[in-house]
Amino acid sequence: MQTLIHNVALLAPDGQVLHHADIAIEGAQIRAVGEAPQNWSADNVIDGREMLAAPAFFNAHTHAAMTLERGWAEDLAFERWLNEKIWLAESALEEEDVYWGAALACGEMIRTGTVGFADHYFWMDQTARAVEESGMKALLAWCHFGIGTEHEVGHKSLAETVAFAERWKDAAGGRIRTTMGPHSPYMDPPEVLAQFVTQAHRLGVGIHLHLSESQQQVDHSLDQYGLTPVAHAAALGLFDLPEPALAAHCNVVTPDDLDLLAEKGVWVAHTPKTYQKLAMEMPPLAEMLERGVNVALGTDGPASNSDLNMLDVMRATGLYQKGTQRDPETMPRALLLHLATEAPARALGWGQSGVLAAGHPADLVLFDTTAAHWIPRHDLWAGVVYTAHPGDVAYVWADGQLLYRRGEYLTLDIERIRWEAERRAFRMVGQPMQSMRRYIK
Amino acid sequence: MQTLIHNVALLAPDGQVLHHADIAIEGAQIRAVGEAPQNWSADNVIDGREMLAAPAFFNAHTHAAMTLERGWAEDLAFERWLNEKIWLAESALEEEDVYWGAALACGEMIRTGTVGFADHYFWMDQTARAVEESGMKALLAWCHFGIGTEHEVGHKSLAETVAFAERWKDAAGGRIRTTMGPHSPYMDPPEVLAQFVTQAHRLGVGIHLHLSESQQQVDHSLDQYGLTPVAHAAALGLFDLPEPALAAHCNVVTPDDLDLLAEKGVWVAHTPKTYQKLAMEMPPLAEMLERGVNVALGTDGPASNSDLNMLDVMRATGLYQKGTQRDPETMPRALLLHLATEAPARALGWGQSGVLAAGHPADLVLFDTTAAHWIPRHDLWAGVVYTAHPGDVAYVWADGQLLYRRGEYLTLDIERIRWEAERRAFRMVGQPMQSMRRYIK
Repeated sequence: MQTLIHNVALLAPDGQVLHHADIAIEGAQIRAVGEAPQNWSADNVIDGREMLAAPAFFNAHTHAAMTLERGWAEDLAFERWLNEKIWLAESALEEEDVYWGAALACGEMIRTGTVGFADHYFWMDQTARAVEESGMKALLAWCHFGIGTEHEVGHKSLAETVAFAERWKDAAGGRIRTTMGPHSPYMDPPEVLAQFVTQAHRLGVGIHLHLSESQQQVDHSLDQYGLTPVAHAAALGLFDLPEPALAAHCNVVTPDDLDLLAEKGVWVAHTPKTYQKLAMEMPPLAEMLERGVNVALGTDGPASNSDLNMLDVMRATGLYQKGTQRDPETMPRALLLHLATEAPARALGWGQSGVLAAGHPADLVLFDTTAAHWIPRHDLWAGVVYTAHPGDVAYVWADGQLLYRRGEYLTLDIERIRWEAERRAFRMVGQPMQSMRRYIK
Repeated sequence: MQTLIHNVALLAPDGQVLHHADIAIEGAQIRAVGEAPQNWSADNVIDGREMLAAPAFFNAHTHAAMTLERGWAEDLAFERWLNEKIWLAESALEEEDVYWGAALACGEMIRTGTVGFADHYFWMDQTARAVEESGMKALLAWCHFGIGTEHEVGHKSLAETVAFAERWKDAAGGRIRTTMGPHSPYMDPPEVLAQFVTQAHRLGVGIHLHLSESQQQVDHSLDQYGLTPVAHAAALGLFDLPEPALAAHCNVVTPDDLDLLAEKGVWVAHTPKTYQKLAMEMPPLAEMLERGVNVALGTDGPASNSDLNMLDVMRATGLYQKGTQRDPETMPRALLLHLATEAPARALGWGQSGVLAAGHPADLVLFDTTAAHWIPRHDLWAGVVYTAHPGDVAYVWADGQLLYRRGEYLTLDIERIRWEAERRAFRMVGQPMQSMRRYIK
């Protein structure tokens, strides 16, 4: 399959805008950018006028099936959010719900220009199935709690979560990667984490976990192990695996922690909308970047973040950092886009994505730039970072496969997905499906 | 003209969601909500299934024609932003540019569900003309600089700016209101402000100005007048006019200032995205609200805020306040919606708007709630505040007039507007219209 996008503007890897360019897509890759190769013909030609090509987004940390709890716990303190609402709803979660929740998430992500995500949840075969069908890419981990019994739904033994990782490793033509999924050092004791390290080496994978999210966790770790959570994880070998570790959050970290994260090449998933909405400590993003820590943006689950919109996360990151650092020059727009595209793609193991250039994977988005909020087009980088919204996303490709075209999903039965997901979500919370009740007769 | 929206969900004034409701619109008003009146027939019936009716947004402070400079000055410190970029571009501003820039802004606002705005700029007859044609509502002020000659474009004598206010007062069938427009107490000396007070009393209007935006302004005011800018403005009678004062920003204020603003019923326009992007001091919003100050949200001009999207401002307000106050329960979603609808409507002088109830103006929006990011519809208030984007706006009415219907503008020639606005914007900055160059052949 050869696709030509003709006469388009694009965000080029050098930070400039290339106008009137052609993009030639051949199979899963970008064959050429600028001019189509000579003696090359396309099966499909798209008129790129008044459109902007940009790298597709990747989401460094989410719990996709938690779309089912979107809007279910609002304006609540974290403890009440979790104990009174989220875990209550999840106690009614059934295995197949995960499939429909994840499929809904894939639908939302595709429409928002996101083609890959790192997921950390339960019954992950269901999420893997949704990813496989959707055409997206994902790094999947079956979450494991090493202590506690409060939250047993979808909870499996370590061996079972490892078996999932083995079963789906490099599946879906390489679009699915897997990793070890201990919840966190405060939910998984050292002997459990050590077993994950052994299994990661055996399978040739990495690890995805929650790390150092609060001062309370840091204090507890210092009490128990005499080490910060980051140093504790490092001492257990979590950062010396065949693939880099992906550590969600790192809200409370010391300068030594940052140096250690940088030295070990750990990817820190930064999900600032969730931190704000749940009033968590904001991680020291500027210091992380200064010290050379790998950072990639994400949403966290839609129960906290409300949506899976990376445009919104990118913008929120820029605004928050400029505002609180009191420096309008910090976090320039090209860096913000990098943190939402190339960086999370690398964090997930797709090291070549996020760049519109020949030889790179054809993971890209076309934005329609005709709406009033794009005009005048003085700066298309600023357009994507500060004014674009998901309604502007016109075309989305992952590995050269067209997933979305002007309102139409090419891989997903979105009507069925939203009906099944909504029906199941209302069942989980024990409420009648008020807003849908008379839509279906 | 009688319009029936049948079988719709709506955000009711009591903070609940009313399902399966009818909304009857008669002329400029809502005739009934819940069930249509008996023996009442509609000229136009809209199927409201899978849609959500919400009050339309109002924008408490902007400079609409600065759409022309959107994206022209990015990632720059305030002084460079203003001196090297914005004023340079504005030095090339021609009178008719303001019409096209404001018309573009109206197009963007309508598509975003905003039906009214407070504007403060130059050549305001042009903005008034765009408002009149668009069907929107606006409180308009011709900006006046009492000192300095740096920025003479569109700059008129006090008498001329007052004549504008007189000329357009209550024009366009009451959709245009006017007010006095001194730039600020640091750009307009006391004797000039005193003249505005006299004129406001003569015309029966209020005043819209920038107030207390930085510590530097506060220090300067204390040096010059022995009073903070707020106390200085109060002492000059700016807060005792026939209509309430509208004070943009109040970034740096004392507790006494807040009490004074509350006592005088001053409306403070709060534009947090601009404060973050330009790294200005964030006003103490929580304290303002606690002390009973009237606050309404706005965007400020699109040269700083990038867009005119009140959904984004509302969301940014919630996230910033929850995150920095470290309290997830603060700024609940109904308050956020109030600050973006009813509050700015009142600030602009439309005291009855922002409420979906019989007898109120028919200023409302229908959101299409079928897209994946709305599902499941556990909480439609959270849907509007945290996940809706402008692409979901399906219908917009102002005073019962339908302005927008599923991609179609009913009052504006958007194709011509965007072409003229973009052409002029590129002329102003002396650049070729790169991205449009080959669209028009």
